[in-house]
Amino acid sequence: MTKKMRNMARLFNPGSVAVIGASKDPGKLGFHVMKSLTRGGFGGKIIPVNPGSMEIMGLKTFASVHEYPGKIDLAIVALPARMVPRVFLECEKKGIKGIVLITAGFKEIDDPAGAELHKEIQDIAERAGIPVIGPNTFGMISFHAGLNASFTPEFSLLRAGGIALVSQSGGMSHLLGFMAMNEDVGFSKIVGLGNRLNVDFPEMFDYLMDDPDSKVIALYVEGIDGARDLMTAAKRHGVRKPMIAYKTGSADVGDVASKSHTGSLAGKHEIYGGAFKQAGILPVDNAETLLDGAKALAACPFLQGPGVAILSGQAGPGMAACDFTENLGLDIVSFTEKTQKKINDALPPLALRTNPVDMGPAWYDSEAIRKIVHAVMEDDNVHSILLLMMFASANVDAVKGLTPALKTWKQRKPVIGCLVAPPGIWDEQIKDLETSGALVNYPTPERAAAALAALWHYRVIRDRAKGDT
Amino acid sequence: MTKKMRNMARLFNPGSVAVIGASKDPGKLGFHVMKSLTRGGFGGKIIPVNPGSMEIMGLKTFASVHEYPGKIDLAIVALPARMVPRVFLECEKKGIKGIVLITAGFKEIDDPAGAELHKEIQDIAERAGIPVIGPNTFGMISFHAGLNASFTPEFSLLRAGGIALVSQSGGMSHLLGFMAMNEDVGFSKIVGLGNRLNVDFPEMFDYLMDDPDSKVIALYVEGIDGARDLMTAAKRHGVRKPMIAYKTGSADVGDVASKSHTGSLAGKHEIYGGAFKQAGILPVDNAETLLDGAKALAACPFLQGPGVAILSGQAGPGMAACDFTENLGLDIVSFTEKTQKKINDALPPLALRTNPVDMGPAWYDSEAIRKIVHAVMEDDNVHSILLLMMFASANVDAVKGLTPALKTWKQRKPVIGCLVAPPGIWDEQIKDLETSGALVNYPTPERAAAALAALWHYRVIRDRAKGDT
Repeated sequence: MTKKMRNMARLFNPGSVAVIGASKDPGKLGFHVMKSLTRGGFGGKIIPVNPGSMEIMGLKTFASVHEYPGKIDLAIVALPARMVPRVFLECEKKGIKGIVLITAGFKEIDDPAGAELHKEIQDIAERAGIPVIGPNTFGMISFHAGLNASFTPEFSLLRAGGIALVSQSGGMSHLLGFMAMNEDVGFSKIVGLGNRLNVDFPEMFDYLMDDPDSKVIALYVEGIDGARDLMTAAKRHGVRKPMIAYKTGSADVGDVASKSHTGSLAGKHEIYGGAFKQAGILPVDNAETLLDGAKALAACPFLQGPGVAILSGQAGPGMAACDFTENLGLDIVSFTEKTQKKINDALPPLALRTNPVDMGPAWYDSEAIRKIVHAVMEDDNVHSILLLMMFASANVDAVKGLTPALKTWKQRKPVIGCLVAPPGIWDEQIKDLETSGALVNYPTPERAAAALAALWHYRVIRDRAKGDT
Repeated sequence: MTKKMRNMARLFNPGSVAVIGASKDPGKLGFHVMKSLTRGGFGGKIIPVNPGSMEIMGLKTFASVHEYPGKIDLAIVALPARMVPRVFLECEKKGIKGIVLITAGFKEIDDPAGAELHKEIQDIAERAGIPVIGPNTFGMISFHAGLNASFTPEFSLLRAGGIALVSQSGGMSHLLGFMAMNEDVGFSKIVGLGNRLNVDFPEMFDYLMDDPDSKVIALYVEGIDGARDLMTAAKRHGVRKPMIAYKTGSADVGDVASKSHTGSLAGKHEIYGGAFKQAGILPVDNAETLLDGAKALAACPFLQGPGVAILSGQAGPGMAACDFTENLGLDIVSFTEKTQKKINDALPPLALRTNPVDMGPAWYDSEAIRKIVHAVMEDDNVHSILLLMMFASANVDAVKGLTPALKTWKQRKPVIGCLVAPPGIWDEQIKDLETSGALVNYPTPERAAAALAALWHYRVIRDRAKGDT
């Protein structure tokens, strides 16, 4: 392992962090970085660096990293580009282990001086074995370390969880973060690669594969330079952890945007799907599916087959789930005789008791619902359960009734929920079910079905990739 | 116009409502209906009917509709099926104008007695000219009348707006309602057709086409019986109002669910797409797109062409929007020289200034953003604007900066927003922009692009349908 790779662990779990370019001025990114660090719950030492200030946000401020007497693990740099080479030399001399370089204005600008600066600081970082996130990044957040090393303090509103997001776009990282806030999805890391001085997808894979906090690796990909390295690196790890990727840049005009954005030319979407799959990565085509699929892959047990049981409190959402499930290649299986008998005993003759099962008549009867879920959980034809229930005043206790049994079974087979109510009614109960690993929940039948399909498609990709290696 | 059709207006705007089967017992639907009515803001007279009670929820209760001395416009019936024929006769005698029949157990059950009862009450209703919503429905909500005639009081949390939702599924109506609560979408009516005694899609179209509160008609469709009537009725109105439909039941097993649910056999999805379009109805394939498309159709001016300008605060979400926009058949146009010059003047050379426009460098400069939006609004090549901005602490004022100009222009051309922030930060500002008609906003770039595509696809369908008539 190279020095740079050894230092990656310290980059994401530093004991002390310097903010070079810390500021009291809300017009400066160094102000927002200080806010992120000081309010994000970081337990280590925070060292503002700015020759013009004595104190920032109540913390003693130093003119340079050298003036600080102790050890510094991580430096977050938010200074104009021309000042960065000197700062990197100082970081090298100070023995700093990692850098987050927020500054823009390197190879992504038209001026060739940008590319020269890029090369200059890259040489310093490589020589010193310092991994650098950026330049031209919003930063990164290492949630289990309580470290918000970004210019967006609001990332600290997210909870720690099992998804590592590695992204070529700051905007997309913010979008996915805000979506996750609304749906209570947790991350281990969110990393904005920016213009990838010396930390690109391969380096992140090498680090994250051994990171016990990261269960799933989610990627947002734009450019094509380094695509081969990305695929090779993913293959090298032999599908040790689920990976899921959203790639944009299929539109003709998008190519221009992509070129400018990360200094590379965006390739065609179609070519990537196949390459991702070969590398053991599940490709998706939508920010929602990236988040939803990553959530399912992080929280559900390994899916053993395509057989689905659809249990729905109301026929309409159940039908939408049937349509999507079938179109996405899953099987709405026939139950065994034994299962069918148990369901028949639990439901009145009026109800549809084959797959999909109409649980409407059992709304008021949590024992009947428990029996049905148990019966399909034990059925060998069934590999996963889609459980749909729309709130109505009369079924307000339906989720409560199911909770003990679902918690006991803890997804012996994946349980994908679509339990939906007005704001504030089932939120806590669903959070409790998700936190205890009893199910994963989604806001629409279609998204629930797509998340289940992600589990199945990943399973197929993984088996093929394993066969390839 | 038939007596039944004349009575439709009173059904949705009654002065007095009787709840036949009103109850104090939360285990009865008549309890929840009373809660909906009394807490939903209804300004008319509420008359609980139950021979076993003197008073329910503080209201004097009558043994039958006859005992009530005044006029009754609407009766909501929540009694066992076998009691319904007698109740209908009483309603006829009392001169009641409309009925919402929540009771289940008619033709959807296996027992032929159900079909007989269905026929019996149908004959009474038709003879009396009483339009009946149901049976086997959660009810209906007439938002501009403050009337929640459903068993779900929480529907009253929704705001009044321009979308009329006519649905064959109670579960789907609840789902769409809860989704709309999260995204502040407003409805004129939500109507659960249930088993359609004598009010089906055609009757609803006839009524809604002349309902000034309903700007857009959104449909959720399951069965195929009456499909020809649906299409014929839609065609008869000659695309007077935008219509958008989500049809489920393409899965093989879904057919069984559909058959049981509404007493009809679900047909294949594919056949419907073409038939809907011919009838001037935009078909969609997802509950999100139904809601998102209806919202855009209700709030945006008529889209004049496929030319889109994509203005994005961050490259990644802009690229996702480009991909979706292009895949959905819209054109990411070249600007005129004049527009291009104005944009070049407003942005530094570093930025991408062609379509899509990277507005990142103008984050802090609301005057520059205003100039860019104005320039593309005036460009004849541009028929709509996609405006994307992810919050970061440093751009917190970006929406505020844009607001005055967007309000002044009031969507001279449709403005589809994807302004996304953590909960509570931009919510009020976005609500203000939407309420004042300055834009419609969506939570992801992909959904924003799909909503814009719905405007365009509806425009194409409408032009063709107009050509046909």
